[in-house]
Amino acid sequence: MSLEREEPHHFGAGPAQLPTQVLQQAARDLLNFNNLGLGVGEISHRSKDAKKVIEDAKAHLKELMNIPDTHEVFFLQGGGTTGFSCTASNLAAAYVAKTGEIAPAGYLVTGSWSQKAYEEARRLHVPAEVIFNSKDFNDKKYGSIPSESEWSDRIKGKKFSYVYLCENETVHGVEWPKLPECITADENIELVADLSSDILSREIDVSRYAMILAGAQKNIGLAGLTVYIIKKTILDEISKVHDDELYKLGLPITPIAFHFPTVVKNDSAYNTIPIFTLHVMDLVFQNLLSKGGVPAQQRENERKAKILYDVLDQYSNFYNLPVEKSCRSKMNVVFTLKKEGLDGKFLQEAEQRGLTGLKGHRSVGGFRASIYNSLSLESVQKLVTFIKDFAESNA
Amino acid sequence: MSLEREEPHHFGAGPAQLPTQVLQQAARDLLNFNNLGLGVGEISHRSKDAKKVIEDAKAHLKELMNIPDTHEVFFLQGGGTTGFSCTASNLAAAYVAKTGEIAPAGYLVTGSWSQKAYEEARRLHVPAEVIFNSKDFNDKKYGSIPSESEWSDRIKGKKFSYVYLCENETVHGVEWPKLPECITADENIELVADLSSDILSREIDVSRYAMILAGAQKNIGLAGLTVYIIKKTILDEISKVHDDELYKLGLPITPIAFHFPTVVKNDSAYNTIPIFTLHVMDLVFQNLLSKGGVPAQQRENERKAKILYDVLDQYSNFYNLPVEKSCRSKMNVVFTLKKEGLDGKFLQEAEQRGLTGLKGHRSVGGFRASIYNSLSLESVQKLVTFIKDFAESNA
Repeated sequence: MSLEREEPHHFGAGPAQLPTQVLQQAARDLLNFNNLGLGVGEISHRSKDAKKVIEDAKAHLKELMNIPDTHEVFFLQGGGTTGFSCTASNLAAAYVAKTGEIAPAGYLVTGSWSQKAYEEARRLHVPAEVIFNSKDFNDKKYGSIPSESEWSDRIKGKKFSYVYLCENETVHGVEWPKLPECITADENIELVADLSSDILSREIDVSRYAMILAGAQKNIGLAGLTVYIIKKTILDEISKVHDDELYKLGLPITPIAFHFPTVVKNDSAYNTIPIFTLHVMDLVFQNLLSKGGVPAQQRENERKAKILYDVLDQYSNFYNLPVEKSCRSKMNVVFTLKKEGLDGKFLQEAEQRGLTGLKGHRSVGGFRASIYNSLSLESVQKLVTFIKDFAESNA
Repeated sequence: MSLEREEPHHFGAGPAQLPTQVLQQAARDLLNFNNLGLGVGEISHRSKDAKKVIEDAKAHLKELMNIPDTHEVFFLQGGGTTGFSCTASNLAAAYVAKTGEIAPAGYLVTGSWSQKAYEEARRLHVPAEVIFNSKDFNDKKYGSIPSESEWSDRIKGKKFSYVYLCENETVHGVEWPKLPECITADENIELVADLSSDILSREIDVSRYAMILAGAQKNIGLAGLTVYIIKKTILDEISKVHDDELYKLGLPITPIAFHFPTVVKNDSAYNTIPIFTLHVMDLVFQNLLSKGGVPAQQRENERKAKILYDVLDQYSNFYNLPVEKSCRSKMNVVFTLKKEGLDGKFLQEAEQRGLTGLKGHRSVGGFRASIYNSLSLESVQKLVTFIKDFAESNA
């Protein structure tokens, strides 16, 4: 029963490839964890060993991201979609507690994930508005982020319960190059960011965020869990509001398993946390720490993105890059062929070289190379060579 | 890198022991699934292979439980606790759609899980009332289920959006021996049942339930997923109600990832379903089918429960069984020692024989032997021998 495998070169957008070493350790721990004679998925979530998994995952993430003591880390089931709902209901409650008022949440929409987050807030009757939709600045298409001067007036003198953005839009391959200063400079704005597809891919200053959410299935693990990092002051505020008060105000009551203060008070084990899935996440954290942490990973990610965009730019008569240079994603490289009728051939020949998962999102078409942390420079080099060869053979 | 292990004898209440064969296959598939060169947790939830995992799990469960075509199967993230919330909000919506009215949900409370389910409905402002709490019939303690004649009057002539029960209460070791006839005989009552800890442990007639929910981590898999089985007519009703209408009525809007019709329409993949966790569940289903399905498992479970209760009854001067005979759980056998001061010794000596997980729930004390499907008759025989030896050595 071998656990060996040839190193894959899988560019799927997620659930994504994980480090082979991590999976091998996870496979062994599935049968026998810490020499207990039982697997890590078979122990009580309140046992000493399970508690240590939770503590280890938190500690390793804190170390990797330099999370300050002002912020709390916790884990919830689900991914981005569950995060959209519980972010809106919890953060709306925090604002009510802090101010005694209701204010709309402001969404910076740069792709379909921030759009979905906005729609879910509205659906739940959390007051919310779009501060800008990048489509309105780019011929009704996603693929750019307007400069701050084009929209910063829209927040002046306004109150928001929180302002929300998605740092990296996987579908359209658009990534915020840095946080907008008109938001981070405003002390009254609580910034909430979805880092599902770029967490741990680059160094960030956590203190600038009121809250971060990140589904595991891109950079940090298997599907089924989401990391939350939140300012402790906001947690305190949420815990001050009684559910009945929210009800009277017409705001949603968060289902108990997603009520942030309840989850934190119970150290992420109010209900049964999927310990196996969390352990895999912790193994990814340990793996990253052993390889030099986020700074080393960031250098490699920048190198990977550079060689990939370089070859696509070099063959710009053959490939089309729909995203503006200033906000090209370092995680999801989206491109199309200028010639029609060759898409199938591209995918087929890529697969013959072991390069899989390159098909673009169904709403966008073309190709998408997702080059998350687990994709090695070697994998990307193979893709670069193929992209070059394909262009030269089919020009 | 061996995947062998000595067969455990772990009596924990959940997350619970799984069949070793299932975990070995899961471990291999974590690295390389269907010879894809990629693990089952690394593929897109919309890929052909992932869709087949979803279809297989559904088909195998339908076969195991003889689920009629009137009912739909789907999977959601979370466990019982998330189920309490979304059951209340979805089923309240169904009743509104069907009748144009609001009626309370009725809860049959026989232990802490049905109590929690009731509390969550109330917390979300879903109208709900307790039809009976078995504590009121048993000296303020859980451990019995009143006979129907004692409470059936309470439902006569009343309207309920649904009636809810938990078939097996893991904390207190109380199991409904059969469904209450005054409920199942009433065509106007939609019966919702939590089968988290006894699904697939015995044959049931699914057609008698409007809805079944069952968290995976006892009898059917790793923590992180819940099985739902629901009448299609109820799904149709929920899909007819607009969120805004619920809002106006003061009823909760279900977060989108838990909105039953949305999930079913997307074949359990509206958001990213944890495919690895679902695959493990399907392997458990396959394993059970290969061993004769539910009838064979039920025979073994009855035998396991019988020999365990028999030895405890035989040494009734030494052991105390707090649950009434008529509703003793076949899944969680709860007992205490009559002598004080021996609890630690009991657990320690059990562990020396490789018998683990026997400590009772913190709210009840004493011991609890959870003998889910994966616990073999041999494991239970070892426990029986130990219980006998311990009584004789310490009498």
